[in-house]
Amino acid sequence: VALPESSALRILTEELGDGFSASANGRFLLPLGDDCAVMRPPSGHLAWTTDACVEGHHFLRPWMTPEQLAHKSFHAALSDIPAMGARPHAALCHLGLSGSIDARWLRRFARAQVGLGRNTGCPIVGGNVTSSAVLQIVTTVMGGISGAPIERGSARAGDDIWLIGDVGLARAGLLILQRNLLTPRGSRQSFDVCLKAFRTPEARLKEGPKLLGRATAMMDVSDGLRRDVAKMAKMSGTRFVLDEDCLDSLLRPELIACADVLGESALSLALDGGEDYALLATGPAKRRPSFAKKLGTVEPGTGAFIQRRGERHRLSGGFEHGR
Amino acid sequence: VALPESSALRILTEELGDGFSASANGRFLLPLGDDCAVMRPPSGHLAWTTDACVEGHHFLRPWMTPEQLAHKSFHAALSDIPAMGARPHAALCHLGLSGSIDARWLRRFARAQVGLGRNTGCPIVGGNVTSSAVLQIVTTVMGGISGAPIERGSARAGDDIWLIGDVGLARAGLLILQRNLLTPRGSRQSFDVCLKAFRTPEARLKEGPKLLGRATAMMDVSDGLRRDVAKMAKMSGTRFVLDEDCLDSLLRPELIACADVLGESALSLALDGGEDYALLATGPAKRRPSFAKKLGTVEPGTGAFIQRRGERHRLSGGFEHGR
Repeated sequence: VALPESSALRILTEELGDGFSASANGRFLLPLGDDCAVMRPPSGHLAWTTDACVEGHHFLRPWMTPEQLAHKSFHAALSDIPAMGARPHAALCHLGLSGSIDARWLRRFARAQVGLGRNTGCPIVGGNVTSSAVLQIVTTVMGGISGAPIERGSARAGDDIWLIGDVGLARAGLLILQRNLLTPRGSRQSFDVCLKAFRTPEARLKEGPKLLGRATAMMDVSDGLRRDVAKMAKMSGTRFVLDEDCLDSLLRPELIACADVLGESALSLALDGGEDYALLATGPAKRRPSFAKKLGTVEPGTGAFIQRRGERHRLSGGFEHGR
Repeated sequence: VALPESSALRILTEELGDGFSASANGRFLLPLGDDCAVMRPPSGHLAWTTDACVEGHHFLRPWMTPEQLAHKSFHAALSDIPAMGARPHAALCHLGLSGSIDARWLRRFARAQVGLGRNTGCPIVGGNVTSSAVLQIVTTVMGGISGAPIERGSARAGDDIWLIGDVGLARAGLLILQRNLLTPRGSRQSFDVCLKAFRTPEARLKEGPKLLGRATAMMDVSDGLRRDVAKMAKMSGTRFVLDEDCLDSLLRPELIACADVLGESALSLALDGGEDYALLATGPAKRRPSFAKKLGTVEPGTGAFIQRRGERHRLSGGFEHGR
């Protein structure tokens, strides 16, 4: 039996309302439940983004607890904010609830969202509920930028390419779930690291704003390194050349262990990953902060390549969510 | 064959990008297609809302052209903005595309959105696409308020109750579509007015901000007058008493003609309507602008009532979208 919309709305208003009051800090003028959320704007320019997490497309229900799904949908949406050098300020959440969602599930989900809002300084200040054939979460996030936004298309020839965070782990986690590898032959700990990367990714909220004045260009890696490097090269009108040795040296041992069990190449998982929510940036070598790892070089020209011992291969193809 | 996400994204970026550049007026710092939209904030406080339009729940595909669906989803989302006394500034659109959506449909939809953004001063500055079992449009709108927001819960005993816009027409339009009355026995013109109210409602963008300093409380009527009056009474801690003669005198002749053909009571359609996107407000009689029509009175006490010749009936029950 489907939860009526009115009951769902009441549960969400109760649960989110509590968290909202606790974290509002005078930024928000009205309690939850009016036509709009009303707030003081963050300082600087507004950065604004929306992202969806759809059952059957991004996840299957048995793979995720309500808390994990709240985490994944929230951080996946937030990730675009630090990718501009911005800090998150507030979020709205639209829920499309399928018939299999009950009051207990929804309460756990909303409580998890309150915790996520508190931990990131970005409370959920409103939203919307409808019934839906499949469970859907559409999260809209607003942030503030103190300075010029770091665009995708402003990399310069001579810049280094930097990676902040891990790639490939979430893809390995997805494969573990898709292949239903409940009793892994490999290291349990490696599996846990990959599953965690898929279920509860962390947006790079601290690192993003620290790259203001350092990075010349930036984006978050959500469609796989291969595709996103090609996008950034194209938008910048430059050539991106990844160094395979650099990338190899950045692969986590847990990825290598899982790739072995899965019968996949760790490098392929890293390149075609998807849902990594790492940051891909460019900048002058001398401006690289220690948390950013060198991945390659920007050259004059066009296209995206990976090179090893002087031999270059074009990066092409990529990852489609959940396929 | 489903339109690939990458093709859908390309079409949307092309179509919306053109409209966006034309209407940006220096408010927006980046072209479409970066991690976030980045903009100068509107003056005053931010008003922020999200709304969904879901196939099978709010509409069926054969009922709506792409242009009509773009209009309905956009204005339904915008409607919350004037309901606070705010003006719309920019919008984000998430699209969940079902397999039946082709490139031609999507291009018509996006072009219509560009026109809607231009006409309202509220361009679509970004968004997201996923595939979806049913077509879904989730629109997030940001506005600015020059002054204190007009809340739902601040009606005062002694205020008059005002209605801005029509109620019941959209419900009559929905019934015409649900009952497949393609060859109406009644007046074709009446049917057209009701179908237009359902398919292409108009958010009260001009009237809302004009009520700043006049209305004590306000909300938009999206769930039917009966329910929304009860909500406002509850949130205000006052009693709302509608005058049935006042409401009768506000019913459009087209509603009365359609109700007759449909075998429904025009008054019931007006009370239980839904998706009207009229504004319901309260304020002192002497502050009522001419575009707001008196509908009743706010009294001390609790609950929502309708009275005729001194006899009062409690308003209860209501409308669920598409049922």
